[in-house]
Amino acid sequence: MYVKTLAVTVGNVLWTAEEMHQRLDRARRVVAGHGWTALLVTPGSDLRYFTGYEAMPLERLTCLVLPASGEATLIVPRLERAAAEAAVLDLPLRLIDYPDGGDAARLLADALPETAGMVGVVDAMPAAHLLPVQRLLPAVRWEEAGRATGSLRAVKSPAEIAALADAGSAIDEVHRQMHQWLRSGRSEADVAADIAAAIRAAGHARTDFVIVASGPNAASPHHSSGSRVIERGDPVVVDIGGTMPSGYCSDCTRTYVAGPSAPGGFVDYYMVLRAAQQTAVAQVRPGVLAETVDAAARSRIAQAGYGPMFLHRTGHGIGLETHENPYIVAGNTDVLAEGMAFSVEPGIYQAGSHGARIEDIVVCTATGARRLNTTETDLIYL
Amino acid sequence: MYVKTLAVTVGNVLWTAEEMHQRLDRARRVVAGHGWTALLVTPGSDLRYFTGYEAMPLERLTCLVLPASGEATLIVPRLERAAAEAAVLDLPLRLIDYPDGGDAARLLADALPETAGMVGVVDAMPAAHLLPVQRLLPAVRWEEAGRATGSLRAVKSPAEIAALADAGSAIDEVHRQMHQWLRSGRSEADVAADIAAAIRAAGHARTDFVIVASGPNAASPHHSSGSRVIERGDPVVVDIGGTMPSGYCSDCTRTYVAGPSAPGGFVDYYMVLRAAQQTAVAQVRPGVLAETVDAAARSRIAQAGYGPMFLHRTGHGIGLETHENPYIVAGNTDVLAEGMAFSVEPGIYQAGSHGARIEDIVVCTATGARRLNTTETDLIYL
Repeated sequence: MYVKTLAVTVGNVLWTAEEMHQRLDRARRVVAGHGWTALLVTPGSDLRYFTGYEAMPLERLTCLVLPASGEATLIVPRLERAAAEAAVLDLPLRLIDYPDGGDAARLLADALPETAGMVGVVDAMPAAHLLPVQRLLPAVRWEEAGRATGSLRAVKSPAEIAALADAGSAIDEVHRQMHQWLRSGRSEADVAADIAAAIRAAGHARTDFVIVASGPNAASPHHSSGSRVIERGDPVVVDIGGTMPSGYCSDCTRTYVAGPSAPGGFVDYYMVLRAAQQTAVAQVRPGVLAETVDAAARSRIAQAGYGPMFLHRTGHGIGLETHENPYIVAGNTDVLAEGMAFSVEPGIYQAGSHGARIEDIVVCTATGARRLNTTETDLIYL
Repeated sequence: MYVKTLAVTVGNVLWTAEEMHQRLDRARRVVAGHGWTALLVTPGSDLRYFTGYEAMPLERLTCLVLPASGEATLIVPRLERAAAEAAVLDLPLRLIDYPDGGDAARLLADALPETAGMVGVVDAMPAAHLLPVQRLLPAVRWEEAGRATGSLRAVKSPAEIAALADAGSAIDEVHRQMHQWLRSGRSEADVAADIAAAIRAAGHARTDFVIVASGPNAASPHHSSGSRVIERGDPVVVDIGGTMPSGYCSDCTRTYVAGPSAPGGFVDYYMVLRAAQQTAVAQVRPGVLAETVDAAARSRIAQAGYGPMFLHRTGHGIGLETHENPYIVAGNTDVLAEGMAFSVEPGIYQAGSHGARIEDIVVCTATGARRLNTTETDLIYL
């Protein structure tokens, strides 16, 4: 273990040592607050958030053991040691490796401060790595740490908000060029391929998803993109996102009409949807419950008689993952705080016919929502 | 639940109903053989293998509950129901959905045939979904099913071997064009970007990884591709792979020299490596232990005095995932069987200087190994 320089790279971006130490310190307070002896962090966005290490999700165990106090340990397969060392160079971590065939579960059990008590486990830890250590430590009580790490990560630092704003600008640039690709006579898949390339061209390191859902496919909230050829007058839901070199994600949905006029009834509910989305965004401020933002969109849609056609929650947090805390959903009494970033994306879906969704990423500021996606939400005829 | 047509789509490829029913039947026999009441299968390649359903790895639970006998249940979030139905249309499954905020763990517990006994869990099941159901069913003993599902998936059907052979041909095509991109004066990252595009152009649906490791970077087995500019005479390890529209993967490594001559000592150990790789491939036939193939490569390298410089196992199975069973590693007494497909990829790494690796995918046939990568393994000077 050694502390050498003053910054750490997450993704391709250099974060200050202050930022990274604040993350670990906040995590330790959460570990202590839950009465856990330690928190287990396996590869994924939690590990990237806390250490900057983008570990390959291998079948071999990689795990950070973060106790409430005292030295943290990062266990890695031997052939990943060099990569891990390079990534976590600047953090006060003890690095332990093991050869192929080594007993990684035993190393993990030994790295825990106690053989009993409660241990927090990140959401993503695979059963293949959790079950063996559960058997070695039958007296430990294992708890999901997802809410805790999720709450930590939900509140973004100014540097993270800047990264998300960059991501928002990049995906807005793609939506602004939609007229180049989206038109009747082309298949969803062909349009999607052009969009995927544009997402990278706009500065993303990776295209994460491209939903081009036309006509009846637009009535399925998670339809991806298929062989269906877009017809004249089809409403088309375009929900797209990628990951920037910083590791932070974009996600923005606009609904287009492929032609000069939309099907009967569509514009009526689109206008309701647009008002609902704006009403929900207007609710955002510190102290408001997450479910209140959901209810604002939902009641506006229900009042207009479209309640049963809004099939999903209103939004999700965004950061190093496209979907993370806070979830904007009925029953979530999480209190919005300054720095939280999330989507506001109500939808109305008329099964078998068409559908619409509008999605912006917003940040909760002291004075209300700051939209990170800034293209118009008027219905766009292409 | 309904059985409508006679085939199912995995990836973009139509598999016969016979193939898919055989997979489920073999799985049921494995469940019974382990004394499990059921097997839990969450999103990932296991779920794709058994149902053809490529579920999004959401924070919401999706899980197949496959009992030893009787009806199987697939639990999905409500907004994924349409996609799940479309994917599993042809299979005898009961589909259950739940709304956002629903108690998915309770549904899962209720779908199990018993409230005690042993239950198999696929390797990838996330702790966030496993821990809640563990608490609901304290009398159940949970076991890793990875070896069992891995053994099932390790033996490929003729249709799967054909899909892997297609993948092998596609990645070979990329290696054959390497002279277009790899030369001194270019950065690893620039070469990697060209290769990534070529992997897709050769027929892959997705580029999974591009390792261009030059000079001292070649001494790190999992170095990806960085800003280092390739120097004249550098050995360069190029380890590349992607996923075909079928869902099946390619993976092939060749070592090149960027110039007319290699550094002192390099060619000596490259020739040892090449002999070791060929020796290991020659060991492959039904009835041989996986570790025997590893030992063949390792002893050849050790005899030449390079033993400590061979840092990893000799190979890994390949199919719907790049890394799956069987692992060709010391201590693995799995018996090779006809239809198993795996990499044979010894490497020699001289820390701080350079390194080399040669990797082919092979299929175990009744008469020995069939190589699915067929480009030469001579050292190639570019």
